[in-house]
Amino acid sequence: MTGQNHGTFYGVGVGPGDHELLTLKAVRVLSSCSCIYVPVSKFSRQGYVGEVARRYAGFDCEIREVVFCLSANTTERSRHWHETAVEIAARLRSGKDVALVTLGDAMLFSTYIYLLRALRDVDPGAAIETVPGISAYSMAAALTDVPLGQGKQSLLVMPAVTDMAEIESAVVDGRGLVLMKIGARLQAVIDVLERLGALERSVFVSRAGLPGQRVETDLRCLRDADEDAGNLAVIIVQASESRA
Amino acid sequence: MTGQNHGTFYGVGVGPGDHELLTLKAVRVLSSCSCIYVPVSKFSRQGYVGEVARRYAGFDCEIREVVFCLSANTTERSRHWHETAVEIAARLRSGKDVALVTLGDAMLFSTYIYLLRALRDVDPGAAIETVPGISAYSMAAALTDVPLGQGKQSLLVMPAVTDMAEIESAVVDGRGLVLMKIGARLQAVIDVLERLGALERSVFVSRAGLPGQRVETDLRCLRDADEDAGNLAVIIVQASESRA
Repeated sequence: MTGQNHGTFYGVGVGPGDHELLTLKAVRVLSSCSCIYVPVSKFSRQGYVGEVARRYAGFDCEIREVVFCLSANTTERSRHWHETAVEIAARLRSGKDVALVTLGDAMLFSTYIYLLRALRDVDPGAAIETVPGISAYSMAAALTDVPLGQGKQSLLVMPAVTDMAEIESAVVDGRGLVLMKIGARLQAVIDVLERLGALERSVFVSRAGLPGQRVETDLRCLRDADEDAGNLAVIIVQASESRA
Repeated sequence: MTGQNHGTFYGVGVGPGDHELLTLKAVRVLSSCSCIYVPVSKFSRQGYVGEVARRYAGFDCEIREVVFCLSANTTERSRHWHETAVEIAARLRSGKDVALVTLGDAMLFSTYIYLLRALRDVDPGAAIETVPGISAYSMAAALTDVPLGQGKQSLLVMPAVTDMAEIESAVVDGRGLVLMKIGARLQAVIDVLERLGALERSVFVSRAGLPGQRVETDLRCLRDADEDAGNLAVIIVQASESRA
């Protein structure tokens, strides 16, 4: 059971990259925690989530980095999350409220999900609260006037562009589609959309809300783009009218 | 072209039903507009969106109701949105900033999308800004610890439970699934999930953030529920582990 004096762990989705898209709850929680964990990778430092942590942290809040474990070795990944969870559980037991900031929505393709599970394993009675955030695709839709879905149209969100056949099948179906983690496959995706006549109902947004934000309503403009143009990018393919 | 003295129209997603899940941007925009439109239906009054409008409206802000047109007659629906757009365009031309509050995320299955299009038709140069909001399913995931998607799992969001075969096919595929607008078909959905052995990976949340919020991690508890238990409800079916 949760002891009365134990702290709470908050997983805080801080939205895509626009400080104004934080929720009131995210601001309140970050302002009141004793410690905020900021995920970093081997390749990038704190960036936007670190900025958010520093902006809203209270005077005596400790800000700690937690290195993402991107290892393909699942045992190594599990051990990594377990160790972080043990560290967090000790802080909670000492009565401290702890937060982890995570980009976008906390329960949608975020590394917070792994940490949440690890913490439930390490301390089943821990008080944990998840604060949802705005996803990058919601902001992309808002920036381009392209709805994610309307009427009875269903929407397929693909968090990684690896299965081109699945993309093709969704486009042929006329389904609404969100493609994330496009990376190096940007030109291949544009090829598919062009071949299937779906470019007219597609838009592209990268680095939504961040410096260098790029919005393209004609994906042909991306034909000469740099190799890294697909990073932090979202493509929305609007459902065809016949599915409305 | 947009005249320099013309106002801006804001479509403001105010999240599922929890006042703390408004974004800082939603609060700023609502506080500064001269007029806020609150959608109502023939069957329900202002409810949560009206509360939000009244809470954040400035001292001299006018709050107006706009009746949802739920007519199956698309000509009648279009005329309705056109008339509302004409009224809003006149206010913008007189230099007023105008907002429409909408539940959840503005570009995801909201009536705001129809109004946005009508306003673009009526006044192609109007300054329009969409403010994304937290969707009900993001809050449902946060309340239940059930991720919407992780790794390379794709997520299918179905805004209306009408095509039981599509639900069945998604469940058999082991895909992550969000079911919205369940309404009177709640028992039929539970039947399908039980038959396919997917109840263990399903959760139910209704009225997320609103008075009467209900969270069920065992859908069997809903077998004796009232006929209206499926209203304002979301079911999340977690992707099967094999798709992770």
